[in-house]
Parts: sequence; C-alpha cells; structure tokens
Amino acid sequence: MSSIREMAVRARQAARSLGQASAKQKNAALLAMADSLVAGTDDLIAANNRDIEAARERGMTDSMLDRLTLTPQRVADIAEGLRQIVQLPDPVGETLDGWTRPNGLQIQRVRVPLGVIGIIYESRPNVTADAAGLCLKSGNACLLRGGSEALHSNAFIADRLSKAAESEGLPADSIQLIATADREAARELMRMNGLVDVLIPRGGAGLIRSVIENATVPVIETGTGNCHIYVDGSADLDSALQIIVNAKCSRPSVCNAVETVLIHEVIAEDFLPIVGPRLSESGVEIRGCERTREIAVEMGLPVLIRPATEDDWHTEYSSLVLAIRIVDSLDDALTHIHTYGTRHSESIITEDYSSSRRFLNEVDAACVYVNASTRFSDGFEFGFGAEIGISNQKLHARGPMGLRELTTYKYVIRGDGQIRE
Amino acid sequence: MSSIREMAVRARQAARSLGQASAKQKNAALLAMADSLVAGTDDLIAANNRDIEAARERGMTDSMLDRLTLTPQRVADIAEGLRQIVQLPDPVGETLDGWTRPNGLQIQRVRVPLGVIGIIYESRPNVTADAAGLCLKSGNACLLRGGSEALHSNAFIADRLSKAAESEGLPADSIQLIATADREAARELMRMNGLVDVLIPRGGAGLIRSVIENATVPVIETGTGNCHIYVDGSADLDSALQIIVNAKCSRPSVCNAVETVLIHEVIAEDFLPIVGPRLSESGVEIRGCERTREIAVEMGLPVLIRPATEDDWHTEYSSLVLAIRIVDSLDDALTHIHTYGTRHSESIITEDYSSSRRFLNEVDAACVYVNASTRFSDGFEFGFGAEIGISNQKLHARGPMGLRELTTYKYVIRGDGQIRE
Repeated sequence: MSSIREMAVRARQAARSLGQASAKQKNAALLAMADSLVAGTDDLIAANNRDIEAARERGMTDSMLDRLTLTPQRVADIAEGLRQIVQLPDPVGETLDGWTRPNGLQIQRVRVPLGVIGIIYESRPNVTADAAGLCLKSGNACLLRGGSEALHSNAFIADRLSKAAESEGLPADSIQLIATADREAARELMRMNGLVDVLIPRGGAGLIRSVIENATVPVIETGTGNCHIYVDGSADLDSALQIIVNAKCSRPSVCNAVETVLIHEVIAEDFLPIVGPRLSESGVEIRGCERTREIAVEMGLPVLIRPATEDDWHTEYSSLVLAIRIVDSLDDALTHIHTYGTRHSESIITEDYSSSRRFLNEVDAACVYVNASTRFSDGFEFGFGAEIGISNQKLHARGPMGLRELTTYKYVIRGDGQIRE
Repeated sequence: MSSIREMAVRARQAARSLGQASAKQKNAALLAMADSLVAGTDDLIAANNRDIEAARERGMTDSMLDRLTLTPQRVADIAEGLRQIVQLPDPVGETLDGWTRPNGLQIQRVRVPLGVIGIIYESRPNVTADAAGLCLKSGNACLLRGGSEALHSNAFIADRLSKAAESEGLPADSIQLIATADREAARELMRMNGLVDVLIPRGGAGLIRSVIENATVPVIETGTGNCHIYVDGSADLDSALQIIVNAKCSRPSVCNAVETVLIHEVIAEDFLPIVGPRLSESGVEIRGCERTREIAVEMGLPVLIRPATEDDWHTEYSSLVLAIRIVDSLDDALTHIHTYGTRHSESIITEDYSSSRRFLNEVDAACVYVNASTRFSDGFEFGFGAEIGISNQKLHARGPMGLRELTTYKYVIRGDGQIRE
C-alpha cells in the first residue's frame, strides 16, 4: 500500500470516531490546539525560517515571501482563529427535516460530517491550522497537502495540532499532513475514491484547474470571481460611487472584488464624470468600452480613454484595474453578466423595484446583491464565521463555505417491522 | 465549435429562460409531453422495433431485449410518469433560510435550478422521458446521452418531448438528446465545465466508473448498494425473518436489496434454522461464514453449507444470493459494515434501545434503518415521488434524489448602500 493510501485509510478510521465526538470534546481539542501553537511559537518560527531561507534562495518574490512568513503576532492570530471556531455552533446532529410515512416509517434527515476531506493549498501556512480547525469542528478528518515552499512550517503546525487533538481524546489521525513535495502524492490523493469524500483546492487558478483535471474524488471548486456591478438608470449615484470604490479598492486581490462596472446609458453622462476621476484618484486604471471612450472624449475625461477589449470582459484582474461598459438596458446588463460572469457575486445599484426583482431572479450567481458591495461575499460577513473557501460551483455548496458546508446528511429511518409491498 | 459544445451552449441558453418559468407553465408542458407521447405511440413503437431488430442481430440477451422493448402499455406508463411529476411541488424559489445582519443587509438563501444537467444512461428508453420530466420540472435543461442500442426510440421520445415543451412556450433546447453512438461525444459531454453543471450517470458499475474516471464536470455517483441487515441479539426473530425475505426476494436486482445478513451469535442457533430454509424455499442461494457452516453441520441444515469467501463480503450480488455472517457483537457488525458497505442502506433488527441508537449514529450510509426493510430506500417510498437515481456519494445529495436534489441555492442579498469596512 502506498503511503498516501495508508494515510487515507487511517484518516477514514479516524473519521469514524471523530464523527461521534461531542461538541464539548471537539471544542476542548480546538482550545488545546490553539494553546499548543502559541506555546510552540519559537520552534514554529524557526521552522518557518527554514522555509523562508529556502524560498529566498529560489528567488521567491517579496509578496510571496510575505505570505509565507510567520511572526509571533501571526502565530497568535492563527491560534485566535482556532479559538473563534470554538464559539461556532456544532453543525453535526442537526435534524434538517423529518416526517412520518403512511406505513408508520419515521424518516429524519440528519446532518453528519462528510468524512475525510482533502485540502490542497498553496503557500500560506495559516491555511494548515484554519482548515484543520474547521474540519475538526465539523467532525471531519483532514488530509492536508500544502505548498512545498511551506513544508517545514506546515509539518510543525500539523504535528502540534494532531498531538493536541489526541491529548483531548480525539484520534491523532484526524489531522494529517502529506509532507512531501512529490507531485505524484497530490495526484494520488485526488484519486482516493472510497477513502476521501471530497477535495477542496484553495489557491490560484492553476492549482484549481489541475485538481479539476486530475481528480476522480468529488471536488468543490473555489475561487474565481469575475464580479460585476450594474448601475441601473434609476440608481442613487452617490451610493453607486461608494459601492464601486469599496468593491474595487478595499482589497483588489480577492475574489469578491468587482472587475467590470456596467452603466445604463441614460445615466452614463452623469455618472462617468463622477466615477472616473474618483477611481483614478484611488489608483485604479480604467478600461472603457467604445461608448465610454466617446463620452470621455466629448466631456474631456482622460482617465476614461484607455480601451477595453473582449479579453477585458473575461478578466479577473485581481488588481487595481476596472473595466467599464455602457449598456442599453437591464437586459443588456443581464446578458453581459450571463456571458462573462463566473457566477460568484453580482450587484445591481437601483431605486427601481422591478429592476431589483428581475436582477435578483435572473442573475445566476452564488451571491446576488441589490445596493450593496460585492465584497460582502465572505463567511464572516454572512455570519457563518471562518470559511474554508468560496464555492464557485453549484453542486453541494455555493458561495461562502462555513462549517455547515463541510457536512452532508443521512436518512435515519425508524420502523416497527415494515416491509415493502 | 463541436456539435456537443454547440448543444451545451444552447442548453445553457435554454436553462436561463427555463429557470424563470412558473410551475404552471412547466406543468402544462409536462402534460403536453405526456399527451404527445401517447399520441405518437405507433410511431414510437415502430422506432423501437428498429432498435430491437438491430439489437437482436447483434445477439442481445433476452433480458436486455426486454428492457429495451416498448409496448403500448409501457408507453402509457411512461406518459403516466410524466403526469405524476405535475403533482409534485415545484422546488424552485423556496426560501431555505434568511436573516438580517447587524449592518442591515438582508440575506436569503433561495432554491434555484442547477442549470444544465447531463444524464448518461444505458438501454431503457423510459429513462429518456423520466429524466427529461424531472429536469424540466426542477427548471433544468438536460443533455441526454442514452445507450446506442436505444437510439431510435430515444431520438423519437426526445424530439416529441422537446416539441411539446416548445408548444407550451418553453425553450425547445430544454430537452436535447445526443443522438450518436460515438463514444467521443460522451467524453466531450463529461468535460463541458462552465456549460454543464452536473453529470448523473445511471446504469451499471462500468458506466459509472467510466464517468467518474473521465469527467471534469461534477458528478453525482449513483447505484452501488452492498446493503446489510444486522440481526441483533434482542431482535424479534419473526420480524427479522419477514424483513430479510422482503429485502432479498422482493426485487433482487435493485440496489436497495440486501446482500449480507449479519447475525449476533447469541441468537444464531435459534435464527439460522428459521431463516435458512425459508430463504432457500424462495430460491435464495446462501453463502455462510465458517461459524454459520459449523452450526449448519451440527444442526443438519444443508442449505447453509456453502462457504462464503472474502469476496462475498464485497459483492453486490443483485440476484438471489445472500451471504450470512455470525458476529460477536454490535461492534463487530458495525466494523463489518464500515469495511464492506457501500454507504447505501443498512438496517438493524433489534428490540434494544441502546443498540438502535448506536447503529443509527455510527453507521455511515445514506439510509440507516431500525426494524425495516432496506427496500424502502426509494424516492416514492420516501414520499419524494419519482427519483432520478440514488446517490452513493456524500457531496450534494445522498440517497434517493427527487426534484429537490436537482436544485442548488443562491444567496439573495438586499441592502441600502452597505459597503464593507
């Protein structure tokens, strides 16, 4: 048996017992995990330094190095994240619905853990603790496969967390790290049908594509957000301005940031002179459709003169770049979003009831907003607490995935001798 | 663009409008579909005869030929199935939950169609109509890929259904059949990420394995049921006997039939002399563990003398064969089920409260029963109405999948200018 398969078998065994653990036991383990990380701060930072040195030698960029780096404060934050999971309600055991059949069979649908969750992620070592904590609280064993550049940090964290869980009576194999840079190991993990119940990739588009391409285990696709804000003809332009600036500038690198703004033609000449300069002041590079550029020329708005191409409509910039397109109508906006959107988060700014109703009904996305920033698509902002990611697919979970989304259900059926006719 | 991609693009376009259709419109379409099939009975049977002749020439077995064959009565039954779907509540638009955030954002989770569903299935032409009807009622466009042996029958059915839907104002492309025997077409369908939202294979183990192996689109795995009944030490033996006979003999070919019976040792000598001859009378071939066979020798029960091997514990016989194993304890039974079960349907026969509680909690399966036949794992028996299949995986849907399981949700968020801090 390969070492990955052995780990998966042990994970499935651990999941069997972890799935029966009480919230009390799991919470005690989470607190022990947090304490153990804090107590190990110096050793963790030493392990992290080995990763940083190796990464620096390989010429890693400063922004990547920053993601990889742990400090005492960052370790304290990771521990605090684990403690916050303690406060969240345990999703396991909730009765989702129940009914009695004419023959007397009593059927209940009850929330249970998924079982074994594989997480494949990139450089940031905090994901090791976040993912392990969320999986543990939801009763799932996890197989963690982090980026090779964080191997020493991740190995230290996973080892600490596993031992802390064990100290509270939970199986040590509830938390396992696949501690090898070997790519074949990740591929093997992706094909552990029957042992691994779901894979959640967290990272860039390349990582996610590779998992979708290679996995035979079910995958929850996360991440890509080509989000739009449509400024309707009836919009409050002040509010539209605030929302667009917030959605683009508050954190441009994340998936719920806006990438394209669609503007109804009846307000284009009023709104462009407001929004263009304001975004430009915030450092945003704007790429406009032909009509936007015509207005820019007419009205003398040089910040709106750069052209958008077909590629721009498809692009998730993840940076301070924004595309603007003038549309004829709500229908036109809906078609643009249908054509180019990634079904993540879409917002309409409007004071018109019928436009709001149509937008909410007709846009096919995980999160559809009226008069609010797309940046709210987030587990904390929704009130779920920490999230394992934001799902971009329709199967199983959509949008921010918290503890509830790390569960499935089973039917519990109580009879008194029923047989089928 | 390949023809499969073109079909998928048209399906996605159709789904956009079908997803907005009212229950009234969809029900009218279902009734028109039923009427149209009945009106076309003679032509459908002529098309079916072409399939049957070709299949006979290729030497198809009688039981396969029977599955393929349509008669006027079978056509009427298919139409009746469509009419029954009219009676089921429309799942689309249900508010699953909703809350208001401290900042005033009002969040609702609303049930919506999945979008485009690909169904890959084998010989029985009734699946074409069943699947199309369930997809349409749940607001989903479908791409149907039936077995090549039923090509003429399926093409006729799909064409009638599509036209009938169109006559009621729904998009004709809501129902499309991939009418080619080319295997490459099925593979292409499995990789239509972004256009096809889910694939549901319906058929034998080979088909399902092939879809899991080749698909990059999310799949719902259906079908395999290695189901157990555990007769506890405290069981009512009469009831146990009725349930086992029902679960094995009422329809041995289906996935919710029982394959292995586990018997607590304290009742083995009482129960084996009852259950063995009774099953044998019903034509069941029994394969026993070593202890079963020892008792058979002691007590002179020749029907229990055939040995079970390790392979038997893994086997879904789908026929009148049953394995019997004597276990030391409930724990022993739980471990057997954990090791060999396919997480489909498992039942305990017991009068002991604590055994029932432990079995319900600890068995990891879609349907876990106390004192009832595993044969109830079925959409109709659960009260869902017609089912598209029985899910064998944990992601998205578990157990019988009715209309509700053909939906996802989206978050609808109403604000009044909220931006994220």
